[in-house]
Amino acid sequence: MYSSSVENLIKLFSKFPTIGHRTAARFVFYLISLNNQEIEELIKAIEDIKKVKICPLCFNHFEGEKELCEICTNPSRDKSLICVIEKETDLESIEKIKKYRGFYFVLGGTVSMLKKDDINKLRIKELEQRIKNHPEIQEIILALNPTTEGEATSLYLERILKPLNKKITRLGRGLSTGGELEYADEQTLRDALDGRK
Amino acid sequence: MYSSSVENLIKLFSKFPTIGHRTAARFVFYLISLNNQEIEELIKAIEDIKKVKICPLCFNHFEGEKELCEICTNPSRDKSLICVIEKETDLESIEKIKKYRGFYFVLGGTVSMLKKDDINKLRIKELEQRIKNHPEIQEIILALNPTTEGEATSLYLERILKPLNKKITRLGRGLSTGGELEYADEQTLRDALDGRK
Amino acid sequence: MYSSSVENLIKLFSKFPTIGHRTAARFVFYLISLNNQEIEELIKAIEDIKKVKICPLCFNHFEGEKELCEICTNPSRDKSLICVIEKETDLESIEKIKKYRGFYFVLGGTVSMLKKDDINKLRIKELEQRIKNHPEIQEIILALNPTTEGEATSLYLERILKPLNKKITRLGRGLSTGGELEYADEQTLRDALDGRK
Amino acid sequence: MYSSSVENLIKLFSKFPTIGHRTAARFVFYLISLNNQEIEELIKAIEDIKKVKICPLCFNHFEGEKELCEICTNPSRDKSLICVIEKETDLESIEKIKKYRGFYFVLGGTVSMLKKDDINKLRIKELEQRIKNHPEIQEIILALNPTTEGEATSLYLERILKPLNKKITRLGRGLSTGGELEYADEQTLRDALDGRK
Repeated sequence: MYSSSVENLIKLFSKFPTIGHRTAARFVFYLISLNNQEIEELIKAIEDIKKVKICPLCFNHFEGEKELCEICTNPSRDKSLICVIEKETDLESIEKIKKYRGFYFVLGGTVSMLKKDDINKLRIKELEQRIKNHPEIQEIILALNPTTEGEATSLYLERILKPLNKKITRLGRGLSTGGELEYADEQTLRDALDGRK
Repeated sequence: MYSSSVENLIKLFSKFPTIGHRTAARFVFYLISLNNQEIEELIKAIEDIKKVKICPLCFNHFEGEKELCEICTNPSRDKSLICVIEKETDLESIEKIKKYRGFYFVLGGTVSMLKKDDINKLRIKELEQRIKNHPEIQEIILALNPTTEGEATSLYLERILKPLNKKITRLGRGLSTGGELEYADEQTLRDALDGRK
Repeated sequence: MYSSSVENLIKLFSKFPTIGHRTAARFVFYLISLNNQEIEELIKAIEDIKKVKICPLCFNHFEGEKELCEICTNPSRDKSLICVIEKETDLESIEKIKKYRGFYFVLGGTVSMLKKDDINKLRIKELEQRIKNHPEIQEIILALNPTTEGEATSLYLERILKPLNKKITRLGRGLSTGGELEYADEQTLRDALDGRK
Repeated sequence: MYSSSVENLIKLFSKFPTIGHRTAARFVFYLISLNNQEIEELIKAIEDIKKVKICPLCFNHFEGEKELCEICTNPSRDKSLICVIEKETDLESIEKIKKYRGFYFVLGGTVSMLKKDDINKLRIKELEQRIKNHPEIQEIILALNPTTEGEATSLYLERILKPLNKKITRLGRGLSTGGELEYADEQTLRDALDGRK
């Protein structure tokens, strides 16, 4: 057994995503090896995270004095497009390719079984409201992962959003870079043949 | 050191694709554990492989009295489509999804560096001839893997086949089943956004 | 579906240890790519395997006119030692380190649950007989893998062989080359501390 | 690009052992999802780490008013044994098996090339001093990992400590639980045969 402060911090680090007890212990010993100034720097950086705000329009995080995030206040973005993603890192992935110029909406997760409790954790009401309040939106891109959960959630969203009479699209499916026909599942091959060009 | 017959067969099994010395040894001990009748059955099955013919039109393997393989002699297939694949197992993968009804052409490999020697190993002359001899072909689907080699080979084929004035397509690209935006490369994300529907 | 000869050989290759349908298919296409002389060479090598004999003393395989294998007929080996191994490749592994100069006995497997049917597949009667017939044996080394199955089988053998009043040993346990204390299980750490020197 | 506070914390988390940029980003978004009280709890726990002291005798960490750690002040431990380990988690691994009752010494690392700069980072002078100051020590167990670095460091320590005329041992080597002869390296097999019992 480690000493109580060590055990306590291991417990908190173990709650970090993907981190188990052993790695959490390595984190703590890493911190013990730091000098006080480095520890203070880390604490300060964690404090600063409290300044991070959530944009009430797209639910992405941002900092600063404004009410909305940088993307939502950018007048040069394409107002006719909204891209629904599961989580903030997906927004970052799409921004990085510098191809999409519309707006975003962070759904906050996906659901597998369409249980009511799970669905209520997603920002579905907020998404509906967002689209109703912005009649300039013409296309809703459901950019959820093509996993079982992502597909189930996309189907559910299509049903919910249908009455709003917008074009609803999903990301194109097919072979990914580096993929091989030999290992592709049948759906991917079908999509790849369908989407040939 | 194993005995000479064992070592000799290990050497031959080691040439099988993906098989190293250790697995080759396990194969030999597996054969030693078989009775004579089972060994004869295996030898007979290997002998029979010599009866397998290569179709002179699509270069797929086949058996029987006919000159051409079953697909090439099937009158209900769509004569306007030809699908170029790297190897026979890719043909099998596409047939399995029961979606494609055109013809095939087994290229026999892909090339990475476009070295003349490597290119000459592919059936490129034969592909050109096949298309020239069959004016009913309207679309050439280059169904090579979206790997570096597959892409380089597709580019090369497009250049070679352009003068024949046929529609040339490639398999659709995008996210594969089970894929995640977070781990997708930029090209795949671009393809997925482009190909949304 | 592949042609019947191809499917038939895929089926037989799929029975090879560790080989699934996809790899079996690659094996067949590899054979199709060989010329007739190469096929004949493979068939000849498989035929030759039928000449391999099993040594009635140690149950290792061997070739030649003699009744016993090369190790069992080697007068310079140490007659006081017999090493019981699970399978022939383990014998090869031990021979390779050129440290052990005694004799061997290939048990033919290990058992996990000590079911009578499983135990009967092992050469336990033959092992007892071997030791009874060779009173010069002074130490029986149970060189089975330190896996659950190997340990269960070693325990069983110890019980069976105890009445023969020979020294019975097992391979030393501890940290393996490249191992790390951090990832070692408790039993291995205990053995490593116990066996320090 | 994430906002500056987010990027700053990602940068700091990326310095944590084994953590890359992507996982560091997930950590930050995890923190953003926490409420202020949970953030404060984490900051408090990190602050507390500053109270952790290093024992001047064994260089393990500890907390409390005492000068020495709990193990070094435990009168029931065996004063004749000292176990040299690379890092604190190795001490923890050995304590967990409840078999060793002697004292410890945390070396602070291992060296691969015996470069002077690397060696100077280890607590070798302190180890010599510890042993000289405690004539009751009779056996020094070098419990470093049996990796290239660990072995090189053990050899070096043996040379340095030899003049002190103590028994110097290393952890026992052999097959680890679940290991297989077939995959064992030659040194491990040799150790396993040597150490049979």
